[in-house]
Parts: sequence; C-alpha cells; structure tokens
Amino acid sequence: MLRALERAAAALFRSSPNPRVGCVLVSPTGQVIGEGSTQAAGSAHAEVMALRDAASRGHATQGATAYVTLEPCSHQGRTGPCCDALREAGIARVVAATADPNPLVAGRGIERLRAAGVDVQVGPCAAQARELNLGFFSRMQRGQPWVRLKAATSLDGATALANGASQWITSAQARADGHAWRARACAVLTGIGTVLEDDPRLDAREVATPRQPRLVVLDSRLRTPPGARLFEVPDREVLIATTEAAFASPQRARLEERGAMVVPLPAHEDQVDLTALLRMLADRGVNELHVEAGARLNGALLRQGLVDELLLYLAPKLLGSGARGLSDWGPLDTLAQGVELQLREVAQVGPDLRLLARVAGRDEF
Amino acid sequence: MLRALERAAAALFRSSPNPRVGCVLVSPTGQVIGEGSTQAAGSAHAEVMALRDAASRGHATQGATAYVTLEPCSHQGRTGPCCDALREAGIARVVAATADPNPLVAGRGIERLRAAGVDVQVGPCAAQARELNLGFFSRMQRGQPWVRLKAATSLDGATALANGASQWITSAQARADGHAWRARACAVLTGIGTVLEDDPRLDAREVATPRQPRLVVLDSRLRTPPGARLFEVPDREVLIATTEAAFASPQRARLEERGAMVVPLPAHEDQVDLTALLRMLADRGVNELHVEAGARLNGALLRQGLVDELLLYLAPKLLGSGARGLSDWGPLDTLAQGVELQLREVAQVGPDLRLLARVAGRDEF
Repeated sequence: MLRALERAAAALFRSSPNPRVGCVLVSPTGQVIGEGSTQAAGSAHAEVMALRDAASRGHATQGATAYVTLEPCSHQGRTGPCCDALREAGIARVVAATADPNPLVAGRGIERLRAAGVDVQVGPCAAQARELNLGFFSRMQRGQPWVRLKAATSLDGATALANGASQWITSAQARADGHAWRARACAVLTGIGTVLEDDPRLDAREVATPRQPRLVVLDSRLRTPPGARLFEVPDREVLIATTEAAFASPQRARLEERGAMVVPLPAHEDQVDLTALLRMLADRGVNELHVEAGARLNGALLRQGLVDELLLYLAPKLLGSGARGLSDWGPLDTLAQGVELQLREVAQVGPDLRLLARVAGRDEF
Repeated sequence: MLRALERAAAALFRSSPNPRVGCVLVSPTGQVIGEGSTQAAGSAHAEVMALRDAASRGHATQGATAYVTLEPCSHQGRTGPCCDALREAGIARVVAATADPNPLVAGRGIERLRAAGVDVQVGPCAAQARELNLGFFSRMQRGQPWVRLKAATSLDGATALANGASQWITSAQARADGHAWRARACAVLTGIGTVLEDDPRLDAREVATPRQPRLVVLDSRLRTPPGARLFEVPDREVLIATTEAAFASPQRARLEERGAMVVPLPAHEDQVDLTALLRMLADRGVNELHVEAGARLNGALLRQGLVDELLLYLAPKLLGSGARGLSDWGPLDTLAQGVELQLREVAQVGPDLRLLARVAGRDEF
C-alpha cells in the first residue's frame, strides 16, 4: 500500500478534479506485476494503468491482489468502471486504503466487487490516502474546496513594506517551491486588489506540470483590466467571480472577449459572498484552492473561518513596523479570538523556512 | 575535545563572567583520567577541576595530555594560573581548542606552557569552542556583550493585541524554554515601558540555575516604581541605567534603597545612549545580554544595529491586524534597509517553533 501511495503522489499535478490514486498489482506468489496512477481527467484511472502495465510486462493478472489507495469506481464516467476492469482481469482480492468519500457512491464499488466474488479489504493506510486527497474529500463531504492560504513574510510578519515593495522578501528557492504548491491546486484564488497593484500572472511556472491550475479572481466591481498580464498565460482558464450587478455591466463582455468566464454570485453590501464562491468552485470541481491574495481578501477569509490551512514562507529578515501584514482582520479583543493552528510540517527552503499549519480541528469532516 | 566541549556546556548557567570551559585529561595510554569544567566565578577553573578529579580517582597525571576548550590562563586572578597547575601536575601536552580572545592575554598561556617544556597544540574544534562562549569573545574583542533579542509572536507577527493582551501567546513549554535562555545570559535587559505595563519579575524561574542573571532596566527618567515586582527576586542584582539628569533626581535614592544600582550614562535627547549602555555592561562583565523588551526598545536596538541574534518563539496562531509587533522601527523605504538574518537553528518546543537567527555577518569579529 505504501508503494501504491507513492504511485498516487505521482498524480499530484495531473489528476484534478479526480483524486490522486495509485494501484499496485501483486501476483499470488508475492511479485509486483503492475503499477499505475491516475492520468489526466478523462484518461485512465490507476487500476486500468496498472492492468495495462502488467499486460505490457507479460504478466498474467489471474488471481492477483490489487492494492489501491481509494475504492475502485463503479460508475461509467468518461472512463469505464474500474471494478469491472479488475474483475475481468481475474483479480481475486482488492485491498483499498479508503472508501470513496462521495456519500452517493461510497461502498458501491466494494459491493460490486464482492458481488462478483472478489475478496475486498478496506482500511490500510487510510489516513495517508485521505491526506493526499484532502481537497477531494473536502469537496465530496463538505461541498467546498480545501482552502490553503499561501503567504510569504519576514520574521516580523511583513508581507510588504508600507509603500508596497515586496519583491522579493523570500528567496528564489522559496518562490520556486511556491510554484509547485500552485501547480498541485485545482485553482489559484486572488483578489482584484492584487491584480490592480501587482499585475501578476499567478501561473505555475518553475515546476514541470502537465496542466495549469485555473485562476479565480474575486472582483466585485469587474475592475480587472482586459490588458492584465493574467490573460497572457496560454491554456489556463480564468474565472472572474463578481456580483449580479457587475455581471450586468458592459465590462463583462470585454473580459469574456479576453477568454475569461465571468460568474455572478450572491453578494452582501456589494461584496461577493465568500461561502457562495467556495460552493461554486466545488461545483466546478475544485478540490484544493490555493489562495494568493492581499491582506484584504486574506482577512475576509480568515474572519469568516474559511481558511483550512496556512502555507507560510518565512524569510530570515526583519522589516520593522509600519509594514503590511498578512491579513486585514482585527483588532481582536482577546487572544481566544485568534485562529488556532497546528504545525504540520516545517522545512527549510533555501535560506527561508516553510511552515504548513492547519486550522485546529479543521480536517475533521 | 568533543568530550571537553560537553563538559564546558555544563558550565552554561554557572561560570559567568568567566567563559564556559571544559577540560579532559588523557593518560599516555589513552585512558580518560580526569574531567572538569569552570565553576562559579572565584572558584576553580576547568583545568584545576580536572586535575582534582584525576587525583580523587587515584590517577597519576604525569605525562598526560590535557584537552581544554580555551587556552589555559596565565594570570593570577581569584584563582591561581591554570598553566602552572598543569605544569606542576606533570602534564606533557596541552591541546586547546582556541586561544584566549582577550587581545591583552592571548598566547601568554601557550608561551608559558611551552617555556616550561609542555607540547602545545591549538585549533581543534575552534569554531564550537568560540560559539559556546560567543558572549565572552564579544566582550573581549568588541568591548560589548553579545546581544540576543528574545520575542514571542504569532505566525502573523503579533507580540500582543492592540489592547496589550499577550498572556499567553506561546505555550508553557516555550515559556519554560525561554527561562533557560534567560538563565544562560549574564544579564536580562528590559525597558521602563515593559516594567510599567507588565510589572514582570524577569528572573530565571523554570530551570535549575545556581545564579540569577542580573536585570538591567533602561529607564531614562527613573520611573521604575520602588514597589515593582522585579525587586522581589532574592539574590539578583538590579541595575537601572539612566541619564545624568535623572541620576541627580531624588528618585534615585528610593531605588537604591530597594537594592538597585543606578548607573548614569550619556544621553541624546533625554534618551540613554545605547552604545554607551552596552559598553558599560561589558565593563561590568556581561558576556551575553538577553533582551526581553517592548517594541520601542527592540526598535531602537535594531535601528542602531546593536542586535546580534534573534531568539524567536512562534506560536501557531494568527492574531490579525492592528496587533502589536516586535519592534517600532520603520516604516522602511526599501527592502534592503531591513535586517538580514541567517537561521541557525529551528526547533519545535511544545506546539510552538523556536528560531535562532543571527544578524548576517555579525559573528565575524
């Protein structure tokens, strides 16, 4: 199963909106005869890739065991049901790390396999398998993406100087690492303030990725300039979330001409409802949402309890007072009103430090 | 020599203002026959402790090698010169990690030993030996203490809420760890703002230490209340650094009655000159200065380039905007005006993270 998990991780930048799944086939004599992982959406799932691998290596699959990191699918999507493929290949036993998190389909693959006489076991390495697909689990079970807020600050919490200067607080290595985190997400979310001030591309550049995550711009008044650099990224969907009022404005057509999809959403006081935004993104297949925004949007997401995880790059420098911080959200009256996190991972990236911290209890859905 | 360094570390809370030194005696057949480390000031040095240890274990020291982490002293202080003790014990060879950093005495111990026919080698583990006594090296070579600024913040850089609430941002484990860092310092420095606002004791409590570091209060107008809790710590020197003008005020006598030593220093615009403060502390034997102060004093020290090292506890929480930061110092115009640091150490302490970061190039004196 650990090997199947490694295979699943190979699908990190690729499988979205499908989960990252790995499959390892083992012969009755204990030999690994085939391996595979989820391909891009619409292409083969891990089980089919593993069966093809076994065939290409000349191994018979009759009586073999399939270790798979997620319950095999039982439905006819763009690809055929994996259950049927496993059964037809004569697989005698399936060990799945977890059941499918979708409450509508969970257990059907297992039932279908058992009905066909296949021995099925569920559970080994369940936590790791879920962790790798936390975004998919979140979308299926909570109806919203897993929201990871990325920021880069000095050790005294500055994301930029008061005059806006922020290039570059962190190192080239940290920025490259940040691109890999963008690449694994289904979508990158930013706010119109960042677009107007920094004119960023917000694509995944310094990493080999077969696809670009979508870019979502929260733009309540449709102020995104049609000449913004974010439109220069080839083969990348741009989705602009706005209010019903702005959606009816002439600016919409100018942005659609640039290839953007403009989506109207409910609003409060002319501001797009952030919960509605997350639901809309889940409906459109966004598992992991990578937020790279300014203090205003960061603050709104934090205040409303919509951030699940913080990805923080800390540069070993001090930038003093009067600088810009991570979020406009406060001042608080008591320490208990703060957001409690749990450190998941600490890594050195070049001269900088990368922290992954999860909002306490947030992954218990 | 590594064993001698371990012994030296045992003197961490004890030897000040003397350096932390370890000594290991090895017989001509390669057997460890005695070990020792620096005792409290005025008591035996490491070499004498090691010779006593060998004697108490019944080992002859004739022809032995002494591994010592610092050049043995050649002067008659409160204890006799270690050079003579080693020679009289028949030590044939001395291996010292580093020469004495005091430019007035460096090399004399080595010369004296060589003149007595002892084979002397200097250099193994020099960097580690210097690192352990960086404060002593700083005082001897720069004429000022090694200044370590301690702070505890949230991940978004808050040391306290806007209303002053700060108990407790970090965990009990991090606070206990902070007491050990206080204990190893020769003195703790704070500002009058912290005294008036928090009324702290600033002693080393949650650690077994044979002595308390001195407390230094920077108080330009002698506003320290004679009833402050900092006077309640037994056997702890309190030094109040002030201006000449305030020194002449009647408040001085009230503080001296409480046991404080009030020291007048040059001032600029009614503020004590911080460089003069550091020189005065070095003259009084302060090797490592542990700064635990508010944003104002932190900012003044940083702005003037007087901080050598940052000891930062990061609590995994977010406290939003409008909170208090580490230092009042800014706003900066360019990122290059910031203080560049190098991470020396990252450790998890309970749920918190402890960073030790050194101002770039600062240890090259």
